[in-house]
Amino acid sequence: MAAVPGLARRIARSGVLPLCSRPPVWGRAARQPPSLLLTPCRTFSNNKILVELDESSGVATMKFKSPPVNSLSLEFLTEFCISLEKLENDRACRGVIFTSAVPRIFSSGLDITEMCGKSTEHYAEFWRAVQEMWLRLYGSNMVTVAAVNGSSPAGGCLIALSCDYRIMVENPKFSIGLNEAQLGIVAPFWFKDTFVNVVGHRVAERSLQLGSLLPAPEAHKVGLVDELVPEEKLQEKAVAVVAQWLALPDHARQLTKSMMRKAVLDRLVAHREEDIQNFISFISKESIQKSLRMYMEMLKKKKS
Amino acid sequence: MAAVPGLARRIARSGVLPLCSRPPVWGRAARQPPSLLLTPCRTFSNNKILVELDESSGVATMKFKSPPVNSLSLEFLTEFCISLEKLENDRACRGVIFTSAVPRIFSSGLDITEMCGKSTEHYAEFWRAVQEMWLRLYGSNMVTVAAVNGSSPAGGCLIALSCDYRIMVENPKFSIGLNEAQLGIVAPFWFKDTFVNVVGHRVAERSLQLGSLLPAPEAHKVGLVDELVPEEKLQEKAVAVVAQWLALPDHARQLTKSMMRKAVLDRLVAHREEDIQNFISFISKESIQKSLRMYMEMLKKKKS
Amino acid sequence: MAAVPGLARRIARSGVLPLCSRPPVWGRAARQPPSLLLTPCRTFSNNKILVELDESSGVATMKFKSPPVNSLSLEFLTEFCISLEKLENDRACRGVIFTSAVPRIFSSGLDITEMCGKSTEHYAEFWRAVQEMWLRLYGSNMVTVAAVNGSSPAGGCLIALSCDYRIMVENPKFSIGLNEAQLGIVAPFWFKDTFVNVVGHRVAERSLQLGSLLPAPEAHKVGLVDELVPEEKLQEKAVAVVAQWLALPDHARQLTKSMMRKAVLDRLVAHREEDIQNFISFISKESIQKSLRMYMEMLKKKKS
Repeated sequence: MAAVPGLARRIARSGVLPLCSRPPVWGRAARQPPSLLLTPCRTFSNNKILVELDESSGVATMKFKSPPVNSLSLEFLTEFCISLEKLENDRACRGVIFTSAVPRIFSSGLDITEMCGKSTEHYAEFWRAVQEMWLRLYGSNMVTVAAVNGSSPAGGCLIALSCDYRIMVENPKFSIGLNEAQLGIVAPFWFKDTFVNVVGHRVAERSLQLGSLLPAPEAHKVGLVDELVPEEKLQEKAVAVVAQWLALPDHARQLTKSMMRKAVLDRLVAHREEDIQNFISFISKESIQKSLRMYMEMLKKKKS
Repeated sequence: MAAVPGLARRIARSGVLPLCSRPPVWGRAARQPPSLLLTPCRTFSNNKILVELDESSGVATMKFKSPPVNSLSLEFLTEFCISLEKLENDRACRGVIFTSAVPRIFSSGLDITEMCGKSTEHYAEFWRAVQEMWLRLYGSNMVTVAAVNGSSPAGGCLIALSCDYRIMVENPKFSIGLNEAQLGIVAPFWFKDTFVNVVGHRVAERSLQLGSLLPAPEAHKVGLVDELVPEEKLQEKAVAVVAQWLALPDHARQLTKSMMRKAVLDRLVAHREEDIQNFISFISKESIQKSLRMYMEMLKKKKS
Repeated sequence: MAAVPGLARRIARSGVLPLCSRPPVWGRAARQPPSLLLTPCRTFSNNKILVELDESSGVATMKFKSPPVNSLSLEFLTEFCISLEKLENDRACRGVIFTSAVPRIFSSGLDITEMCGKSTEHYAEFWRAVQEMWLRLYGSNMVTVAAVNGSSPAGGCLIALSCDYRIMVENPKFSIGLNEAQLGIVAPFWFKDTFVNVVGHRVAERSLQLGSLLPAPEAHKVGLVDELVPEEKLQEKAVAVVAQWLALPDHARQLTKSMMRKAVLDRLVAHREEDIQNFISFISKESIQKSLRMYMEMLKKKKS
């Protein structure tokens, strides 16, 4: 997969900060017997994302900490890709749990301010980062579990859909779905492909046209999430699910995952530049810009 | 999409009759504020189909009125395409409900008399009209809801499957399905593709081989219809569903629908002539002609 | 379809033995009115498989009799293909029920001894026989019903998945699934395609990665089997199901089946040699050979 242009530069300036006292040992050196480590947990953080890696189990938890709503800004996406790549290359890590450190919201999806009143170059950079996030997550060799502890519209839903398994807090006030149509936007074909692979063609066709945001119980009923749990059980359940998936030999599991997802991943890779151009020409339309501005005004008023 | 050859001629001679006293205003002029109209309903009719357009809601109801069983004759199909095209081009119309004006039957499917003892040219014209009906309906930009108020085998089922949403009267005496195999016929690949998109591969494989006609409750259970209602609630429910779908911005909804259906539509467009030739060579076989004649004899006896 | 190389030779030496007193009449001569036959049942057997054909109904039962676990050895696969081809070419036979003559096991799947410590030529011959079995079964013109009366992992599950209908004994101690990943092996793409056609993409993705063996009730819930029955009702139910499918005109049913399965069958035909090479290079790896040897050791210890 092609890297995000400027990713190296961004990594360099992103200032990933080790939060624990031990020096961060990413890589083989970390594969010491767990007994040698007193606290077998390494913690990393950047501005938007906190990563905790439990070395005894090989499971990391990636927490979204970008209040108020964990929107997927260029900065968030870049940090997400950097963190995921670090874990992917870290032999101490075999599974990742994605969850939110912000109450009541998993992620609100793509950051509208990145799509409003910016340059063509900015739109291209932003969209490439959205693609990169999905390509890395949907194609990850690690076991990926979404622990959805809040609402998760649009791009937030895409993150959950791209994982191997989705657990959601059973609170019916939390909803999830690809609701792009409600904003007058069309979900990209690879959002759609990912969705169809999870819920099938019929549920996808109906939900995408209605821009449905389903309350947790309904999302479970149509298969959009695999399991509902009380909020206090979420992390524990997610850890148990990752352990279950990790009980399989990595190599066989990874090849199987790739076999299931390759067609859909390849499709975006083959049409990546075209997809960026489509996004730019769509988002640059005055009618779309206007409706996004109105939507942002509405959000601002709601806030104050 | 290529038009039905001879469609313009047929439109010219089809004598679509405005039934209401106001002159029929199809088009932009109709987009006056609803408050200016005393009875915001326009009615049109031809021999086989009655169309009522409620201009205040933008929702038309297309009623099949071709007793005894609303079979899809060449005339019916032609009038269906004409009516649908009128509505498609009418800015006052954004959604259509399809239902039957004949008791206990939605549509019995393709008219067997069109396939029996006719010329090759006739078979070609007939099959092209069947294709055209599906291409226009499955690809319609409008919100389409089937209000299935009676049995709906074969081609009747195809009409329902091609809509955005299917509501059926909960009467278990009404059944629906692609039962072609029961007549010794094979459903065309695009019937099959449409069916798979609704119920998935497994249910389609089994139902098509068995030629299953499912009573309403079973049809609901496998997802062939989305919802069951008492007969007296059908129209009301259909209107509510169209309103729900129309609450979304047209443009986003239409592009989303096209994204979901394009692959299957394109497949027929690419193989249209081949599909007509297949139909002709199949239907011209003496064994098939014989079994169709026997089937028609049986129907005549049943009647008398 | 290309025949298994060496199939003719194997047929010659396989010694298919007619078990009943009447001379085996496979073919047109057998199509006498059932009333002329006192016991309208013909029985054939070879080393691994017993076939009973009820000429009055046109339904054969193929019983796997290769204790201890009906593993799919080269010999078993060859006899399976021979028996199936005989039935396919026998006009007295229109449907087949597959079941086990060994208690508590339907089939344990591919015989590991065929994949361990053998020559490249042997691996190629073995894999071609596995492909041939699937190509003939999944593409069979007959109605095929799996009467699963015991556990059915991996290749055993594939046999069931390739039938038109699956009935399983409701005993929760019997489990079924494509559990290749548990052995560190990846299910071939055509196992996966067959699985997706039955249970859909999501269930397949999850089950294949986890190498899930589902107890009968769970297998029923996800659609891996169509129906559960008490063991004593299994044969009776299987016969009733075949009769239901045979009530349809053969020609229409066969063309419909082919339409549903052609894409997946064609995919293996197009990549058959490549698939064999993949298997050889995978199975020849020292790491895989080692884990298969360990697995066989474990099985031996378990046994003694």
